[in-house]
Amino acid sequence: MKPRVVILGGGFGGLAAAKALGKRAIVTVVDRHNYQTFLPLLYQVSTAGLAADHVAYPIRGALRETNGKFRMGSPISVDHKNKTVKLDSSEVLDFDHLIVAMGSVTADFGIPGVAEHALGMKTISEALEIRAEVMRRFEDLCRFEDETRLHIVLVGGGPTGVELAGALAELVRGPLKNDQAHAAKHIDITLIEAGPRLLPMFDDSLSQKTKEELESLGVTVLCNTSVKEVESRKIHLGNGEVIASEITIWAAGVKGSPDMDYLNIPKVSNRVDVDETLQVRHYPHIWAVGDISGAKGEDGKFLPMIAPVAMQQGRFVADQILRFEKGSTPLKFVYKDKGSMATIGRNKAVVQVKKIKFSGFIAWSAWLFLHLFYLMGGRNRIGTIADWFWNYLTFDRGNRHILDSQ
Amino acid sequence: MKPRVVILGGGFGGLAAAKALGKRAIVTVVDRHNYQTFLPLLYQVSTAGLAADHVAYPIRGALRETNGKFRMGSPISVDHKNKTVKLDSSEVLDFDHLIVAMGSVTADFGIPGVAEHALGMKTISEALEIRAEVMRRFEDLCRFEDETRLHIVLVGGGPTGVELAGALAELVRGPLKNDQAHAAKHIDITLIEAGPRLLPMFDDSLSQKTKEELESLGVTVLCNTSVKEVESRKIHLGNGEVIASEITIWAAGVKGSPDMDYLNIPKVSNRVDVDETLQVRHYPHIWAVGDISGAKGEDGKFLPMIAPVAMQQGRFVADQILRFEKGSTPLKFVYKDKGSMATIGRNKAVVQVKKIKFSGFIAWSAWLFLHLFYLMGGRNRIGTIADWFWNYLTFDRGNRHILDSQ
Repeated sequence: MKPRVVILGGGFGGLAAAKALGKRAIVTVVDRHNYQTFLPLLYQVSTAGLAADHVAYPIRGALRETNGKFRMGSPISVDHKNKTVKLDSSEVLDFDHLIVAMGSVTADFGIPGVAEHALGMKTISEALEIRAEVMRRFEDLCRFEDETRLHIVLVGGGPTGVELAGALAELVRGPLKNDQAHAAKHIDITLIEAGPRLLPMFDDSLSQKTKEELESLGVTVLCNTSVKEVESRKIHLGNGEVIASEITIWAAGVKGSPDMDYLNIPKVSNRVDVDETLQVRHYPHIWAVGDISGAKGEDGKFLPMIAPVAMQQGRFVADQILRFEKGSTPLKFVYKDKGSMATIGRNKAVVQVKKIKFSGFIAWSAWLFLHLFYLMGGRNRIGTIADWFWNYLTFDRGNRHILDSQ
Repeated sequence: MKPRVVILGGGFGGLAAAKALGKRAIVTVVDRHNYQTFLPLLYQVSTAGLAADHVAYPIRGALRETNGKFRMGSPISVDHKNKTVKLDSSEVLDFDHLIVAMGSVTADFGIPGVAEHALGMKTISEALEIRAEVMRRFEDLCRFEDETRLHIVLVGGGPTGVELAGALAELVRGPLKNDQAHAAKHIDITLIEAGPRLLPMFDDSLSQKTKEELESLGVTVLCNTSVKEVESRKIHLGNGEVIASEITIWAAGVKGSPDMDYLNIPKVSNRVDVDETLQVRHYPHIWAVGDISGAKGEDGKFLPMIAPVAMQQGRFVADQILRFEKGSTPLKFVYKDKGSMATIGRNKAVVQVKKIKFSGFIAWSAWLFLHLFYLMGGRNRIGTIADWFWNYLTFDRGNRHILDSQ
């Protein structure tokens, strides 16, 4: 008898588990979207570099080789005694193993006004909203034709904030300047980071390099700067200063999806509390992978909420479930850190693999290659190569459309 | 002194006029979107064949070579005495000539329930809504796993209805069947036409061919069938029958944009009343081109609401305005009919150029080539070629994402 495995979430972790299980289990993937979002390239949708459809991939397409089922929806409860999960469609799925892979949502750390006045960057809808907001405010500037300035402030100096700041700066200094130079010159971009440096997971020298590169693109970088409150059109900083911000983008952090509360399983700091085997504490038939998993590294800290962790965990859990079914004891999960990379702009990126670190054109090429490699679907790869090739050669960005209105 | 020309609408007609005027006039294009929509390929967005961004082109990009200005917004009034047009932003634009090129909207011919229960096909938002609706209902069917059927009914046997019906049938019989065969087999597609045959602008033999091809793809074609009322989940036909329709798509016709009422100029049957010179009757400084123009052909009938008419008229009016400024009398507009074409599906299309008519693979190739030729922007062409190439080789459609929700 093949084990019945229900996977909650069709992101990097959930789909890695589904594919690794393949036909050796009866798999059902549940997700509220019918597609996986390739989050590492989402910032290029926000900044008119890529078409939204190219960073999405239909989950049913990903499952075609595995015989896996898909259900669009969200879990609303788990019956731990009978091992069933109920979905919002009221369908009830039986499972022998449940993999919780529901990812993360934007975390506002309780800072007032973030939910109301800042734009998140976790879904395709949000990315298109940022693009629409930037383009709409740009159109306002074009009409004013005076000294009015547009302030775009990004909060959070991690990879998302850095990549978005660089791409926005290039959008403004390139294509928007060609559209209407006067307006483009009146756009200010500021990146705020609470800690002492950008990209804290990288070596100090690369953080410094990143800051310099962003500044050379015209971005104002404020480190050691916390945000106390976000209001409409302004931000209160921790030091008492108030800065103007017509568009505030919140990339300061994420937390495990609160949908985990429906599952009635133990939590630790907004993540699912798991053993070193990635089994949920006290629930050996339930596993948690990816951003939502409270797995820790050798340093005792939570593992970073990034795609490589989720994918390694997804594949690991698939193996453990098959071992479990054979009566073997599950192993401990160990994350293999293959390094970090972030792109800043045209020919500009930083890469760090253990002690090796480099930046510039080679880092940028490595970034391009790796992201294409992990992007799912030949069509998405071809489409993305075409868009990148075009953007690179023409210095243009074709996707400047405001698509959120009728 | 160069004439100041304000163009209301950045579609085929408006942009053709702007480009033809180039730097010989001071041009301002006004449109409620910041992009032009390539309407002839919109049905491929609805049916997951193309990414939404590839059928749009930024108006500012199109105007870069002309020094033309762009304003995002809609006109709310015209001061005919002082020759100014006021926009909803409350900006007032002076003009020497005004070109009305605001296009058309879906016409429901007063049939009850169309606005409430049928989906239109005139904007990118509407195309994405159709795609989302089809994919969402398909996901429902996948969950039911029973004998429930999904009925998709398209009303209108013109090119839009025919192309959409063919592309939907191919989506269902190909990619959706690969996603979940049981569900795909429970989807019915019906095309309803009030007149005696599909594509009435083509020769009888091509209409017959089109019907046969659609039927071979599994589409039920009902000619001589009028719609009396659309309700939620059903359609009342003129003959008293009631048919089930969970998704009703309205492609039965269009009419000139009602926004023309704000301009206070003479109308004739929902179009702007123009002389043979395309000057608005009694308003020699105002011109109307494209779908909204009430220009008539040699047969005394209104010209068809299609892109070639709009583009020819746009270029023509640009010339007339320059003639007018030199003191010459405006000429009469004569439409050069270069033929009609419609695609039904893979390797299937119909083409008619005067007496010459053909169908099949050659017609389909001609259709592909011409649409690529008229599609604006190298990036859109490359992206579309990539998508088409991929879809053709793999029989798949990658853009099956439901993007209208968060």
